[in-house]
Amino acid sequence: MAKAAKTAISPTREEDYPEWYQQVIKAADLADVSPVRGCMVIRPWGMGIWENMQKGLDRRFKETGHENAYFPLFIPMSFLEKEAQHVEGFAKECAVVTHHRLEPGPDGKLRPAPSAKLEEPLIVRPTSETIIGAMYAKWVESYRDLPILINQWCNVVRWELRTRMFLRTAEFLWQEGHTAHATDAEAIEETMKMLGVYADFAETEMAMPVIKGEKTAGERFPGAVATYSIEAMMQDRKALQAGTSHFLGQNFSRAQEIKFQDAAGGESFAWTTSWGVSTRLVGALLMTHSDDDGLVLPPRLAPKHLVILPIYRGDDDRAKVKEYCDQLAKELGQRDYAGDKIRVQIDDRDLRGGEKAWQHIKRGVPLRAEIGPRDIEKDSVFLARRDTGTKEPIGRQQLIETAPQILGQIQDSLYQRAFKLREENTCNIDNLDEFKAYFTPKNEAKPEIHAGFAQCHWSEDPAMHALLKDLKVTIRCVPLDAPEEAGKCIFTGKPSTKRAIFAKAY
Amino acid sequence: MAKAAKTAISPTREEDYPEWYQQVIKAADLADVSPVRGCMVIRPWGMGIWENMQKGLDRRFKETGHENAYFPLFIPMSFLEKEAQHVEGFAKECAVVTHHRLEPGPDGKLRPAPSAKLEEPLIVRPTSETIIGAMYAKWVESYRDLPILINQWCNVVRWELRTRMFLRTAEFLWQEGHTAHATDAEAIEETMKMLGVYADFAETEMAMPVIKGEKTAGERFPGAVATYSIEAMMQDRKALQAGTSHFLGQNFSRAQEIKFQDAAGGESFAWTTSWGVSTRLVGALLMTHSDDDGLVLPPRLAPKHLVILPIYRGDDDRAKVKEYCDQLAKELGQRDYAGDKIRVQIDDRDLRGGEKAWQHIKRGVPLRAEIGPRDIEKDSVFLARRDTGTKEPIGRQQLIETAPQILGQIQDSLYQRAFKLREENTCNIDNLDEFKAYFTPKNEAKPEIHAGFAQCHWSEDPAMHALLKDLKVTIRCVPLDAPEEAGKCIFTGKPSTKRAIFAKAY
Repeated sequence: MAKAAKTAISPTREEDYPEWYQQVIKAADLADVSPVRGCMVIRPWGMGIWENMQKGLDRRFKETGHENAYFPLFIPMSFLEKEAQHVEGFAKECAVVTHHRLEPGPDGKLRPAPSAKLEEPLIVRPTSETIIGAMYAKWVESYRDLPILINQWCNVVRWELRTRMFLRTAEFLWQEGHTAHATDAEAIEETMKMLGVYADFAETEMAMPVIKGEKTAGERFPGAVATYSIEAMMQDRKALQAGTSHFLGQNFSRAQEIKFQDAAGGESFAWTTSWGVSTRLVGALLMTHSDDDGLVLPPRLAPKHLVILPIYRGDDDRAKVKEYCDQLAKELGQRDYAGDKIRVQIDDRDLRGGEKAWQHIKRGVPLRAEIGPRDIEKDSVFLARRDTGTKEPIGRQQLIETAPQILGQIQDSLYQRAFKLREENTCNIDNLDEFKAYFTPKNEAKPEIHAGFAQCHWSEDPAMHALLKDLKVTIRCVPLDAPEEAGKCIFTGKPSTKRAIFAKAY
Repeated sequence: MAKAAKTAISPTREEDYPEWYQQVIKAADLADVSPVRGCMVIRPWGMGIWENMQKGLDRRFKETGHENAYFPLFIPMSFLEKEAQHVEGFAKECAVVTHHRLEPGPDGKLRPAPSAKLEEPLIVRPTSETIIGAMYAKWVESYRDLPILINQWCNVVRWELRTRMFLRTAEFLWQEGHTAHATDAEAIEETMKMLGVYADFAETEMAMPVIKGEKTAGERFPGAVATYSIEAMMQDRKALQAGTSHFLGQNFSRAQEIKFQDAAGGESFAWTTSWGVSTRLVGALLMTHSDDDGLVLPPRLAPKHLVILPIYRGDDDRAKVKEYCDQLAKELGQRDYAGDKIRVQIDDRDLRGGEKAWQHIKRGVPLRAEIGPRDIEKDSVFLARRDTGTKEPIGRQQLIETAPQILGQIQDSLYQRAFKLREENTCNIDNLDEFKAYFTPKNEAKPEIHAGFAQCHWSEDPAMHALLKDLKVTIRCVPLDAPEEAGKCIFTGKPSTKRAIFAKAY
């Protein structure tokens, strides 16, 4: 049997999925570990992807009537105590600011100045419901002041003990939407609308199919009445929660006294929502599409759509090739794709051609065009597609004309591939033994490739949670489009009307 | 004598400039105080301005070859100690994180958990030279890895004791560029290039004339070899430093060991720069253009260029007026202005017309178009300009055709007005008595309207600094275009070859 071709990333997904993930990040220059525990550095290529995500999301937020604002990084400790469940969920592990000055200590080294101890410690925001709620309480007096539809792009900190780049870090970047409404119906509509925005973004821009669903009681955001999420399947068939939208009822408005005078003159508490996605999406994107040669990017989020690699030997060639490439880049750069211009890079660094090509493969650039003197004679280029690995000549003019369609095809085909993987690895399971077998690794040496999504009848019960904990399986959500059907919880035998999705998860 | 017309903002600039500033912020919904000491909330209208500033700057950074990245919020305390001057400048007042968990104390209330004390305290970044330098040291091995041209958009914290919204707050938003180069010449070129980018941004987008100059030794960034700034004159004739660009020499690269192998095989320290502007620019914008009726926005940075105010009495009118306004908004919104589409808002809230108009005046919207049934009969609108206060009818078609030019005129005229103010309040002063008289308030009851910029010969000397401190005057910069001329320092009599600019300052 022939030995498998050598891949750019070692180990492969099959060999060691978690290590493959780290190596793809490294090979694609997405991020680096920092000297600060649990915090990562997002390098320009990773930041370019996040910036494109931000653009796609921000446009959708504004189209649905939201505005951006900015609230303080710090939250007074007492604010966290106002909502009981919320403090339970977030007070545990957070960065606590206790002093506002450094001074040289007896040993001459810096220390927090004892004379500059804060009266009340400040928490670096893990999420901003409490501080934003305090402002809304100030801004809202009458029903005319509602709704408030605000989003914030910022950094947050949660002191995670086990970190993994993009997926779980102490500091991360995100957006958090916070809205306040006069009625519960309006707030619920907003909650569902933003869940829809996230699903549309994930599927259209990230080419990542998602399941929209409601979290069960045990998985709700601390203080929420209902939490909805979009869930995606990674290539190791684990689930990744890619975005959440919470209906907070009047829990936070009561705790923070966001009251308003309604049209009839009575006083009511506002109904609030919050919703967020984070740089975790970069990790999700990586694990949805990448392969054993590194990152694969859906064109809509790629910092560069096409890289031109000029090939020449002598100086004579060089000038001619350079001029041809410049002209091609210019013409391609005027073509529209997905609401933007095609983003073209010419890589004429003084490196071996193979080395350069592999760098762009590992970084996931959707298209590479190699151009040498012979290609110019034929007025054509050698075009390689990152998603399929195909490499074939194409006329220059044809490339200019069809580049937007080719990018569109890549975007579609990545979505289809991911959708197929999820379909192939999702099944209904109706008894506990099968469930256990499904989630027991077949090969203990490679425990990281999992079974997939199991759709099962369920009931909220301690017995279920204990069992799931043992198996390291979680209940992801009850899909919004799950059909009503009579069934029995596979854990307790209690009657159930809908299946939930169970999976190992990030 | 006739009593002055009532203004929307009270007090006026003449009456109490600092209080006028606060009232303009409030009336324009730019920002609000927060429950966290020294931290403000940037409201959507203020954030919209900052987002437009970000776009204009980010485009310029990318056009000059820079990429964005993101580095940790926290800096280990020991990092600040590496560069002696830097620690002196920044370690003093900063937010110190000492614990990573809260727990209920003996009284049942939350407290930092004694068991979760950090081994080494973390500082919330006041600026990121040290943490970014540590990463560059890791990334740079050979001259081929240089230059590194990276920018970061983020929040920073400096524990200011006296805060003023936008101008000086404990937390603020900014961008910090950090570059590393193989030669001093390249790093100096970068420093000057980014100073030029800032000046171009300030003058083109903010309509704010600035003086590019070098800071004197006493005003340098801690650890820099040379600091350059752009300085603007506010309407109270105080100076405001609107952006800085630092040539750091090898000071930080030595402290952080950013070493590289040069082409000849030898080892060298890299030459670094840093440069930044912050949300302080929003304060500068306000104080450059606003008047006693509130904010005046240069069109290029206005979140909305034109607001349409429909006027109607009955329901019959309403439908007709609404349709006409929608159509006008649509057509105006397709017109190009300054690389974007014209940003139009229709304000059809159920409020009195006068109340709505004044709200948009106070928020500084450049153009207001009032449209009622009679205007529609004539196919014209009543157009008001925020900068001049003029209000006159204009044909609908003419408005659609000329709106970009009108916005351009407003942008230009705001620049010219600010330029004129600076010219009229700048003078050469050649002796100390005159200098003292110039900076001594003429009216003790209104100490906040100042004399202006004085251009004087100078020498770096303790005597000068002592005198300046007494007068509360600062040396702003030595303008890059200051002519060489023989002179004598007005403080010490020592010979001097160039005049510096002296002013009271923010």
